[in-house]
Amino acid sequence: MSVLYKRVALIGLGLIASSMVHAMRRAGLADEIVGTARTAETRAIAREDGLCDRVVETAAEAVEGADLVVLCVPVGAMGPLAAEIAPHLAPGATVTDVGSVKGAVIAAVAPFLPSHVNFVPAHPLAGTEHSGPRSGFAELFDNRWCLLVPTEGTDPNATARLRALWEGMGSFVDEMDADHHDLVLAVTSHAPHLIAYTMVGVADDLRRVTDSEVIKYSAAGFRDFTRIAASDPTMWRDVFLNNKDATLEILGRFTEELFALQRAIRTGDGDHLHAYFTRTRAIRRGIIEAGQDTAAPDFGRSGKPVTAGSDGAPRPAEEPRQG
Amino acid sequence: MSVLYKRVALIGLGLIASSMVHAMRRAGLADEIVGTARTAETRAIAREDGLCDRVVETAAEAVEGADLVVLCVPVGAMGPLAAEIAPHLAPGATVTDVGSVKGAVIAAVAPFLPSHVNFVPAHPLAGTEHSGPRSGFAELFDNRWCLLVPTEGTDPNATARLRALWEGMGSFVDEMDADHHDLVLAVTSHAPHLIAYTMVGVADDLRRVTDSEVIKYSAAGFRDFTRIAASDPTMWRDVFLNNKDATLEILGRFTEELFALQRAIRTGDGDHLHAYFTRTRAIRRGIIEAGQDTAAPDFGRSGKPVTAGSDGAPRPAEEPRQG
Repeated sequence: MSVLYKRVALIGLGLIASSMVHAMRRAGLADEIVGTARTAETRAIAREDGLCDRVVETAAEAVEGADLVVLCVPVGAMGPLAAEIAPHLAPGATVTDVGSVKGAVIAAVAPFLPSHVNFVPAHPLAGTEHSGPRSGFAELFDNRWCLLVPTEGTDPNATARLRALWEGMGSFVDEMDADHHDLVLAVTSHAPHLIAYTMVGVADDLRRVTDSEVIKYSAAGFRDFTRIAASDPTMWRDVFLNNKDATLEILGRFTEELFALQRAIRTGDGDHLHAYFTRTRAIRRGIIEAGQDTAAPDFGRSGKPVTAGSDGAPRPAEEPRQG
Repeated sequence: MSVLYKRVALIGLGLIASSMVHAMRRAGLADEIVGTARTAETRAIAREDGLCDRVVETAAEAVEGADLVVLCVPVGAMGPLAAEIAPHLAPGATVTDVGSVKGAVIAAVAPFLPSHVNFVPAHPLAGTEHSGPRSGFAELFDNRWCLLVPTEGTDPNATARLRALWEGMGSFVDEMDADHHDLVLAVTSHAPHLIAYTMVGVADDLRRVTDSEVIKYSAAGFRDFTRIAASDPTMWRDVFLNNKDATLEILGRFTEELFALQRAIRTGDGDHLHAYFTRTRAIRRGIIEAGQDTAAPDFGRSGKPVTAGSDGAPRPAEEPRQG
């Protein structure tokens, strides 16, 4: 893999940014990586670990002379950050971000950017429950999707180069528009996360069942909910506040359906329940038959991309499920 | 491991029963295993595969001379089955089941059983999304919990022997009363399953996002929901109808909390969201610190039991999560 950028500036040094450092170094994608973070503590850790080639004090300083600037801060902090760095961006630079919401980020960032830079918003679909400059690792993006959401007027060459960077870091890359991105993510990630947060909160409130029992006796289902519910609170607060419409739409449909199922349970309508569960089982089977998932609980990490064809042979022994 | 039962009768030959066959044989726990199933097709498959030592036509025939009778049918079928086998049960036999609900099973089964048998309801917390006589495997119960719910007047020796059987099949065993079992399972399994079913149904209804996109771009969260939602529809219909009160209680609290979070999103109350997510993160961390879970996505299969102490060192690289 050849060098794609001479100087990459990472603003914010959490899980995604620190993983990008390791992944870019693994493949030799950048000549120099400059980083900065809001808190002195994070900057000190990054310096101590030699995380970046240089750690600087301010975002303005970080972007000087960079041909790629990556905004790796919570979605709610993107707008003020853009205002701060705008006067210091080099002509021809590409500005991108890694936020989980695209519509709100574009609305907050784009107005500040000068016309001599290219803005290519991005969203790597990868993460762990851990955060901070020491949580990153080179393999985080391997075989995971990164969605690019190029804005109007973006130079296609800038988009192509950013695509090559993400592919070089191990990702599969797709492009879509911001509205569609935000709806897809509301379904696949934002609503499920809020639901998991809620269920963990409920279990904790229920004093008749101890936390220890809840974990001890849960296999699939609840145990995964607790893992989801451990994600970074600030990041997720900003996700929900900034993908409000799509998330509320999905949650509205969700509660509507859930009420129908609750009523079926209350009234003893077994046929309704059976028909519903048969339909969802068919959805899952369709997914496996289309080769879009394996039955193995690897969360798709080791799998080939959907577009690469079928790796969907079910491996039943690896799938715990309980009643 | 020595032989614990001379003749084990398995009524119903699905995932749990067929896994019990393999697990009992692995450890040499039974001299003879007799099986039967409702449909001629299942009996024919079991015969063809040599699944049991003998496959017989009726449940009444299966229990003749058995010192352990295991009811492996959906929860809703337990009562009629008990009525059918009751006159044929050998004196001193132990009758048990593997249903996911205990209160309703006890209410349905106990009245039919003669006083010369011991009834020890059980619930192995194990399963996959697959069902039928060919879905079983010997390792299904390894390092998983099996909960025993002895009924009043049960001979402690009968309970102890059944405990030894489950331990011989690889499980950890605990005892609790039926009400507590049903509440714990409503929290850890039944409500999460209904929630997953619902979310998969919602995604499918949403025609603007294709099923293929939903899977392609989901890592954790939704992908696991589809796996959960592929479980056996009949079994789950019966679980919800028979653990109605506890499930509805948990779902009621769940929707209450979810509404509060939805309102916070709608009104832009970031503080409420942040505080909630911080609390659930603390719950998750408490769980890891107590050694009650690892950070690895193995669903606890490979872990030691909670009571065996800490194996909870987080392994961040193995945990995909996305925004």
